[in-house]
Amino acid sequence: MKIITLLTDFGLDDVYVGVMKGAILGINRNLQVIDITHNIPPQNIAAARFCLLNSYSYFPTDTVHIAVVDPGVGSCRRCIAIKSTKGYFIGPDNGIFSGIIPLINPSMVVELNNSKYWRIPNPSKTFHGRDIFAPVGAYLATGVNFEELGTQIDLNNDVPPYPPFERGEDLVTLPLKSYQKKDNEITGFIQYIDYFGNIITNIPDNIINEKNWVIKINDFIIPKANTYNDVKIGELVSLIGSHGWLEIALNCGKAAEKLSLKLGDSILLTIKQ
Amino acid sequence: MKIITLLTDFGLDDVYVGVMKGAILGINRNLQVIDITHNIPPQNIAAARFCLLNSYSYFPTDTVHIAVVDPGVGSCRRCIAIKSTKGYFIGPDNGIFSGIIPLINPSMVVELNNSKYWRIPNPSKTFHGRDIFAPVGAYLATGVNFEELGTQIDLNNDVPPYPPFERGEDLVTLPLKSYQKKDNEITGFIQYIDYFGNIITNIPDNIINEKNWVIKINDFIIPKANTYNDVKIGELVSLIGSHGWLEIALNCGKAAEKLSLKLGDSILLTIKQ
Amino acid sequence: MKIITLLTDFGLDDVYVGVMKGAILGINRNLQVIDITHNIPPQNIAAARFCLLNSYSYFPTDTVHIAVVDPGVGSCRRCIAIKSTKGYFIGPDNGIFSGIIPLINPSMVVELNNSKYWRIPNPSKTFHGRDIFAPVGAYLATGVNFEELGTQIDLNNDVPPYPPFERGEDLVTLPLKSYQKKDNEITGFIQYIDYFGNIITNIPDNIINEKNWVIKINDFIIPKANTYNDVKIGELVSLIGSHGWLEIALNCGKAAEKLSLKLGDSILLTIKQ
Repeated sequence: MKIITLLTDFGLDDVYVGVMKGAILGINRNLQVIDITHNIPPQNIAAARFCLLNSYSYFPTDTVHIAVVDPGVGSCRRCIAIKSTKGYFIGPDNGIFSGIIPLINPSMVVELNNSKYWRIPNPSKTFHGRDIFAPVGAYLATGVNFEELGTQIDLNNDVPPYPPFERGEDLVTLPLKSYQKKDNEITGFIQYIDYFGNIITNIPDNIINEKNWVIKINDFIIPKANTYNDVKIGELVSLIGSHGWLEIALNCGKAAEKLSLKLGDSILLTIKQ
Repeated sequence: MKIITLLTDFGLDDVYVGVMKGAILGINRNLQVIDITHNIPPQNIAAARFCLLNSYSYFPTDTVHIAVVDPGVGSCRRCIAIKSTKGYFIGPDNGIFSGIIPLINPSMVVELNNSKYWRIPNPSKTFHGRDIFAPVGAYLATGVNFEELGTQIDLNNDVPPYPPFERGEDLVTLPLKSYQKKDNEITGFIQYIDYFGNIITNIPDNIINEKNWVIKINDFIIPKANTYNDVKIGELVSLIGSHGWLEIALNCGKAAEKLSLKLGDSILLTIKQ
Repeated sequence: MKIITLLTDFGLDDVYVGVMKGAILGINRNLQVIDITHNIPPQNIAAARFCLLNSYSYFPTDTVHIAVVDPGVGSCRRCIAIKSTKGYFIGPDNGIFSGIIPLINPSMVVELNNSKYWRIPNPSKTFHGRDIFAPVGAYLATGVNFEELGTQIDLNNDVPPYPPFERGEDLVTLPLKSYQKKDNEITGFIQYIDYFGNIITNIPDNIINEKNWVIKINDFIIPKANTYNDVKIGELVSLIGSHGWLEIALNCGKAAEKLSLKLGDSILLTIKQ
């Protein structure tokens, strides 16, 4: 039984997610369709990029991952599929895949312009999830050759700017601020805030592992720990989170609210000797 | 593997949806159960009617669709099942099926009064989803004859009033306002507002297709377009939506909030010569 | 096809639930994974205990139920699995299972300390759902012997206190207030408020069945009924709910809001002669 995952900003209030599953199961009812999340903040490609990056690797390597956060739907932005030994990826070429690309070493990318594998030859201008991405994913998971899905994209050309969604030969990438390291100080940026209010920075574990550190934010001095429980209930703590990045949490509370921090804000970490 | 879909107003906070799936899989664990949505506004039969109408046709035609928005649960309203070449439908006879009935040409409707296919002979007065609709759907998807589920309902009699939930020989229908066309003006009504704040009217594509139009709401003049991206971010646009109705959207925003419009409000569209 | 259910407080905004499913399907893609709910209020073990208690029995008796509301993750609290003729249960030993234990008559309980069945030998300190509970559940549902999962726990010793999460030989239990009966009055407590605003008390049906009663809360006198529809829209009603406990509801509204009641509040019921 092949697996298809879905990652969207469609929410769970409407029928959009159910309809995508109908479009998939209408092609092959023996596929297993798994929701990653449908609550990406509307049109937030950066959050979708983060969530895809942190979920794909737990699935079998023949899984088809469909990711649709697509404010440019119906415009000239491309629909693409990516083939790799870590999985298949389908969605708009708008930067949503720019987190995984460096990790999966794609062997081929195609533009989805073969309408034979669309739901209908004239897809809706506003719902490519249903009319292109879902059926293409279902056919791919059912055994259609990857090369059949459309025209191959040469990955060795220039990167087009973003936004707006201009066509280019290479894939769109999302520009993200990198962390900076200077002497014993590291400045990172918040790349995600989760449902628990945990703050996930872009400081990776491999540059702070086995080090001791402290974080200062406003008047708070936040110690290093191993678990949320290393501090009392209601206290702040910093640790290597399950995603593999430096994370700031509040034991039994929401750190992001307590610290009034938001996506993109900077965090200063000081390595202690 | 047969498919059962679920459409309810149960929300996802409690165990009700999980329990319905348990009741289904307890009868046949090889069924594929797919959520359409469980976030229909509580007791809003009109929204459920719209959502069912816009989702059923994407599924295989032997799918069993269970729809439970059921403020009259436990009262004398009937539990019914509908057979058609477009699918099977199970739920309360309260108007939830009145959107699909004209489209699916039912070949038979039964009242679900054969307790052999209920979970227990004395079902809860408040949770027919678990005790009647889920097990009946599971048995039907497993091969029980449709006629076995209960007493056939003659569809050729008078329509009972709604509300209250009076018994009648014919099915309950939901009265919905129709759009009105006069010269070059069409007055439609909002039949749904989705999670993105898109406003979905009841003006169908076939009466405005290939025409040019403009919509005036308060001080806003809203142009016709093909995609959300045909206008700048933050601007209003009107188009044929993926559901096949005239839709008003805000590029990267919520049209319903910007225009302070709600379900049932009227929309005036002017055809341009 | 074996079934695994998931009950967590992870919410549906992040990838945590999807990642747990990936960890399960990566071990055996033929398992059927069913969500009970992921919207348990964060860290609320009592609500999780209630929800597990009210959902497990609808599933086949070889189902593996994974329940993860786990504020003590990474601390010394134990990870456990429970075997019974009513199903298998996997999660933290923090009281989440103390509702079902008296009902399922466990034949064996093990501490999950055999890292052979974990995802990785050094699990994350903050996400045992992914690294321990999900893979152990998948292996168990795939045929691994229960005894293999870890060291057997002797259930006949003293009960450790809670909180904090102290290790003990016996399982952690959640202390919950019991209802009190005196003459013709019963004082119960609110053990759950559902998405519809229905108030679920801990007064069981078997002590009030076939009796007549009335409930007084502030200035409201709430009559007994059989269905939500036995009173007019907007009126309060009390009945035996689908869970089997005394429930207070508002026809087409939210009783908990109208009465300003919350979890743990007391309810006085008077039996009428």
